[in-house]
Amino acid sequence: MSAEIPAIPEIAWPRLRARLDALAEIGDTGDGGCARLALTDRDREGRDLVVTWMRDLGMRVDIDEVGNIVGTWPAASDAPPVLMGSHIDTVATGGKYDGTFGVLAGLEVVEAILTAGIETERPIAVGVFTDEEGSRFAPDMLGSLVYVGGMPLEAALMTVGVDGAVLGEELQRIGYAGPAPCPARPPHAFVELHIEQGPVLDAEGVDIGVVTGVQGISWTELTFSGQSNHAGTTPMAMRRDAGFAAAALAVAARELASAAGPPMVATVGRVTLAPNLVNVVAREAVVTVDLRHTDEAVLAAAEQDLLARAHAIADAEGITLATRVLARFEPVTFDPGVVDLVERAALARGRTTKRMPSGAGHDAQMLARVCPSGMVFVPSAGGISHNPAEHTDDAQLARGAVVLLDVVLALAGAGEPVGQRGTRT
Amino acid sequence: MSAEIPAIPEIAWPRLRARLDALAEIGDTGDGGCARLALTDRDREGRDLVVTWMRDLGMRVDIDEVGNIVGTWPAASDAPPVLMGSHIDTVATGGKYDGTFGVLAGLEVVEAILTAGIETERPIAVGVFTDEEGSRFAPDMLGSLVYVGGMPLEAALMTVGVDGAVLGEELQRIGYAGPAPCPARPPHAFVELHIEQGPVLDAEGVDIGVVTGVQGISWTELTFSGQSNHAGTTPMAMRRDAGFAAAALAVAARELASAAGPPMVATVGRVTLAPNLVNVVAREAVVTVDLRHTDEAVLAAAEQDLLARAHAIADAEGITLATRVLARFEPVTFDPGVVDLVERAALARGRTTKRMPSGAGHDAQMLARVCPSGMVFVPSAGGISHNPAEHTDDAQLARGAVVLLDVVLALAGAGEPVGQRGTRT
Repeated sequence: MSAEIPAIPEIAWPRLRARLDALAEIGDTGDGGCARLALTDRDREGRDLVVTWMRDLGMRVDIDEVGNIVGTWPAASDAPPVLMGSHIDTVATGGKYDGTFGVLAGLEVVEAILTAGIETERPIAVGVFTDEEGSRFAPDMLGSLVYVGGMPLEAALMTVGVDGAVLGEELQRIGYAGPAPCPARPPHAFVELHIEQGPVLDAEGVDIGVVTGVQGISWTELTFSGQSNHAGTTPMAMRRDAGFAAAALAVAARELASAAGPPMVATVGRVTLAPNLVNVVAREAVVTVDLRHTDEAVLAAAEQDLLARAHAIADAEGITLATRVLARFEPVTFDPGVVDLVERAALARGRTTKRMPSGAGHDAQMLARVCPSGMVFVPSAGGISHNPAEHTDDAQLARGAVVLLDVVLALAGAGEPVGQRGTRT
Repeated sequence: MSAEIPAIPEIAWPRLRARLDALAEIGDTGDGGCARLALTDRDREGRDLVVTWMRDLGMRVDIDEVGNIVGTWPAASDAPPVLMGSHIDTVATGGKYDGTFGVLAGLEVVEAILTAGIETERPIAVGVFTDEEGSRFAPDMLGSLVYVGGMPLEAALMTVGVDGAVLGEELQRIGYAGPAPCPARPPHAFVELHIEQGPVLDAEGVDIGVVTGVQGISWTELTFSGQSNHAGTTPMAMRRDAGFAAAALAVAARELASAAGPPMVATVGRVTLAPNLVNVVAREAVVTVDLRHTDEAVLAAAEQDLLARAHAIADAEGITLATRVLARFEPVTFDPGVVDLVERAALARGRTTKRMPSGAGHDAQMLARVCPSGMVFVPSAGGISHNPAEHTDDAQLARGAVVLLDVVLALAGAGEPVGQRGTRT
């Protein structure tokens, strides 16, 4: 540490750690986890705390019509900022870092720049996007989607949650139905720091994930309808077994992913048989297939392949098949300039890096529609996320924050920070 | 019909049909089905009606300690009878014929013989066995099991039902805790007429199933324990997917049955994944495999084959496997003399026949432990059973009752009835 050189902005890890811990107390589940479902009282308390911190730093705080919070520095600046941020809502059994880390590291970057007395060419800002998880109000990434004009504000406000609550009413209730217009004016650029939520960096011992884009997602629900029969009296040749078809489909999905190779992933995570009895051939099987790939053409071809296999299985078994698309997002490619910048910043800090797509959805994929965007990943221990056991070592978190700082300084026009200073953390 | 020849006993189909309909009214579910769970008030009403019919025919009615009802004719006879019968309890969504048909056809055989004034060398009797279905009190075939000494009476009476009721208390409550001792003195022979409950006879257009035995049954529950992971962020190579293992096992079970050929059947009817979400790799999968075969050695080898395949699947996926035997019954072979007699009786009546094992369990498999036993099957439309849609055409039911009559006359010593008379139905 070299706090004696005031012109060099530095991440003060203890300060960031303290903010992470303070925010984690709101909705603390007692087992290391956090529960701050979007627009609940806990979410309001978390928002209030973050807004207080923003104001304490002298940032201007704007709340928009869908409840997104954007803190800008300098407060008086009206130019498109370099935007950092993520979300602070969690799933019901969330951890301390998913989303929260990107927001609070953004605040730390602002404080580091402020403290160093650096004036960037462009304003810098931190966004807290509403309802990223989608656990209470579907779809996920709702706030950033509305922010970039991907969903009409009116539709968002009328969204009914799993608990019957109406999004617009909840925004009013917690005091976060703001005046700033949605869609917003695009920022200059967007950078989101996030835990990987997957096992790759941890398993390979890599410090920083240079996120190249977000995988396209295809969710299909398949319903096989056969005939319920006695498991003892029905010869194999006379069966129309929906359960067997579901099993064959899951095996086919694995074959498809293996044949395609990485980054293709295929998951059959949900299977429901009826009547689901030990001695009855299943009448019906409902299964879901989650397919993801970074290349839209490959993903679309995989969907066709999967459906062809499913129909072949159904035909061979003499049963019917109905399919329903549950979700479909095209892959997102991040701005090559931002991706390069993230990589160079990490390497200049002596970090090991890996270019990788994100398997999970993030607000950055929405912002990528309107401005150059990118992401920085830090490792997730064991790849565990959406779980109280979600964990990343302090040193790894700090390294991510330093990369964010360097990238933001570069994007905001404070000279080329990368490699210009010694390693400070 | 030739009622003018009084010495020839004949099945009076309208009389049997009327009894089937009358008994079906008790527990009528309004959709063509019947619900008379063992030892409920509905079961008592059904028992009372059958006992009344027995007494009306002048039969002696004995109720034993586990509630089995045996009606004997002549009432005064004490010699081991030729016993017919089955059960009148049903599953919760039962049909009109499962069990009931064998009991009421037995009564019709008695009435036909009585009406013809024939005196058989041995007494004839009709048994109604307690709790064959096992839907309320496990195990199934409980009454006949206790009847032949396969389960201690005390254990049976202490059996607790799915509704918390105690079997012995329910027997007392409905007035069917009788004085006749269990285990009972073995009858001379036992013949059970039953609907097939499978699709074979119906599909092949065969009149009469000559049942050679009952398949052995092996139920195994397999629990695969892997690791829950994010469907998007976890590369295929790093997964420990319990759901995939369950699917691979179901496919392996089908392969195993196909390789073995008939009469091997293998069913994976129950699959439960956790957490069972579209975008989460399953942490745990619990599946059941129902294996059946007529040959104990083949069945045992199939069990070993299945376990080896399951362990190989678990090892390949890097997950653990725990197994639990849920049920295991060795195959039963019926008495060759009784089997031959059933076949000859049917052929002599001009019926088409098929020798076949029973895939389902029946009281006859218990009686086979203590006396020469056999079964007669009639077709089940579409193989549907344990369902309100359970159906067999009147003509097919009547043909079965005629075969039962002829077999019983032969076993009871009334001369060789087969082929001695013309076809009467």
